[in-house]
Amino acid sequence: MELNYSPGLDGIIAAETKLSFLDTVESQIVIRGYDLIELSQRYSYLDIVYLLLHGEIPTTEQRVDLQDKLKSNYQVPQEIFQIFKLLPNGTHAMDGLRTGISVLAGYDQYINDRSTEMNLTRAFRLLGGMPNIVANSYRVLNGQDVVEPDSGLSYSANFYYMITGRKPTALEEEIFDQSLVLYSEHEMPNSTFTARVIASTQSDLYGALTGAVASLKGNLHGGANEAVMYMLLEAKTVEGFENLLKNKLENKEKIMGFGHRVYMKKMDPRAQIMKEALHKLCLEQGDDSLYHMCEAGEKVMTQKKGLYPNLDYYAAPVYYMLGLPIEIYTPIFFGSRTIGLCAHVIEQHDNNRLFRPRVNYIGERHNLEELSV
Amino acid sequence: MELNYSPGLDGIIAAETKLSFLDTVESQIVIRGYDLIELSQRYSYLDIVYLLLHGEIPTTEQRVDLQDKLKSNYQVPQEIFQIFKLLPNGTHAMDGLRTGISVLAGYDQYINDRSTEMNLTRAFRLLGGMPNIVANSYRVLNGQDVVEPDSGLSYSANFYYMITGRKPTALEEEIFDQSLVLYSEHEMPNSTFTARVIASTQSDLYGALTGAVASLKGNLHGGANEAVMYMLLEAKTVEGFENLLKNKLENKEKIMGFGHRVYMKKMDPRAQIMKEALHKLCLEQGDDSLYHMCEAGEKVMTQKKGLYPNLDYYAAPVYYMLGLPIEIYTPIFFGSRTIGLCAHVIEQHDNNRLFRPRVNYIGERHNLEELSV
Repeated sequence: MELNYSPGLDGIIAAETKLSFLDTVESQIVIRGYDLIELSQRYSYLDIVYLLLHGEIPTTEQRVDLQDKLKSNYQVPQEIFQIFKLLPNGTHAMDGLRTGISVLAGYDQYINDRSTEMNLTRAFRLLGGMPNIVANSYRVLNGQDVVEPDSGLSYSANFYYMITGRKPTALEEEIFDQSLVLYSEHEMPNSTFTARVIASTQSDLYGALTGAVASLKGNLHGGANEAVMYMLLEAKTVEGFENLLKNKLENKEKIMGFGHRVYMKKMDPRAQIMKEALHKLCLEQGDDSLYHMCEAGEKVMTQKKGLYPNLDYYAAPVYYMLGLPIEIYTPIFFGSRTIGLCAHVIEQHDNNRLFRPRVNYIGERHNLEELSV
Repeated sequence: MELNYSPGLDGIIAAETKLSFLDTVESQIVIRGYDLIELSQRYSYLDIVYLLLHGEIPTTEQRVDLQDKLKSNYQVPQEIFQIFKLLPNGTHAMDGLRTGISVLAGYDQYINDRSTEMNLTRAFRLLGGMPNIVANSYRVLNGQDVVEPDSGLSYSANFYYMITGRKPTALEEEIFDQSLVLYSEHEMPNSTFTARVIASTQSDLYGALTGAVASLKGNLHGGANEAVMYMLLEAKTVEGFENLLKNKLENKEKIMGFGHRVYMKKMDPRAQIMKEALHKLCLEQGDDSLYHMCEAGEKVMTQKKGLYPNLDYYAAPVYYMLGLPIEIYTPIFFGSRTIGLCAHVIEQHDNNRLFRPRVNYIGERHNLEELSV
């Protein structure tokens, strides 16, 4: 019974899944059997949504059908915006998002039905409404007007439009969509694990996603992309960034955007795709300073520390060049990951076993009788 | 690297802790070194709060100081009640509670400070305000007026008063307090595990508790006490309850309130304490029908299935005899467990390692090249 203790469950198998797998031997992120990097170069976010839910790359007809299902869920109840308005000044965008998803649960009349069919309906509702909640929780918290979804736009273009109030260019839409593909699913990170642990009590999809937002907020997880951007802005120049990183290394500070528990000392293959996207954006906009800063930072970290960039490191400057506000980077990550989380919760509910591990007790033992009462 | 897979992490050590331990060899629930059953017979909930946070049973002075700290946090921001009013009809009490805690995060100016000291301040705020949020989320969702806390009452008496609008009798207060002691902490159940997993990303205490509410809502966890009460009410009589249980057993339905992953086939020692409390309440109120029904149900389950009652099985009829509305049983459980959760999050933040397990991939492998594009 007494097994070895692995802090953080490092290397421990927590679940069986048909959804995804980080194959460190082949250096491949496997999504429903396919290489995520190849998928990101040939398919859109909607295709990945279909693939994760149904196990197959959709036909054109299936893709249109999925798009219609999501578009019919672009609207969310107006009371949610009133609630956002009541949140105190300074509420973090991720906390606003968490509250919004938590509130949404009350609108589901069949919340106790955890059948695959009902969970799929629920997933379409959440996926369709997520750009609205992500964008408007941020907007309202920052004193901006609520933006209505534009169902004439593609899923990704509408997501971008709701955040910025501006329709993306073709390149912007393509790169934003690609970032959503890359963030969509990634085996068993902390937030996915959180969602499955919660779902295993037979709690519902909304609750599982609420917990996942809380997890993703942490700066050892989704919060990393924000942290990277603040570093870049603080550093201002290539030289400034090199010095900032060297100082942090000397002071043994944790540096966000590098390394990954599973990839260990290899580069996160998703980072390379976003690095190329950053280059394209920089060329289009005629300002490649962020690209050069990031390259220089990458060099410092690999040479001095043997650590390679992860997705957050290059997604952050890409989002910056796309004109997205920094505080919404992690909510966008969550918006994209919603599909992975939904697929994992469905898988957990369909073949459930309650998560209930044990502990190593390292405290004292006392006898109450010894106490003078 | 490839370890054996234990579904639900059954038997896997997930953390080291000085807080509590289910000692199945000695049949003891160890809380900071003491036997929880003995504690529940000699100490109040406030003593357990102090014990869990500081590792010692408080002196009279320390106890008064703690009580003052909690009383100064009985009030919560009024906007939270406005938000409760905006939640749709039919929102589950646990979902209302989850939203309330999520909203509270925005009022914490030092939310990124995870030092022990700041986490303790935060824990006092959450513990002090929890009866208010639990009671008023339920009240508002059920069309009742908001009740203001009464700082002239003890912690438990005020908690009871805010739910029912009536001050408890001495026996009611004693038994309600005892139930809070029994629910306060229990090693690494799903909700505590959820909170630690979330906290390990360096996310904050509010987020960790939000996820824990979502977990506790599930009927394989905290939702069990509600489920037990609905069974008892449906059955109406001793004979009716015996038949209901036998029918469920024949149909291989899951029966809530019996068995426990860790206790296996032994009786949860907390259940015995609540069984005795139920007897006292029945005697005082001159109606022992629920007591006899529960005893008969216990007999059916041990004889037919070898399963013994857990805490939820006897807490449910105790709460019913205390005049508490059924939908608030699980929120009360959460209110009590808030201290255990806070103590675990503090412990996690003080000695952190990100939870990030792996998976067994049981899906297919494909090559995109094989697809006709």
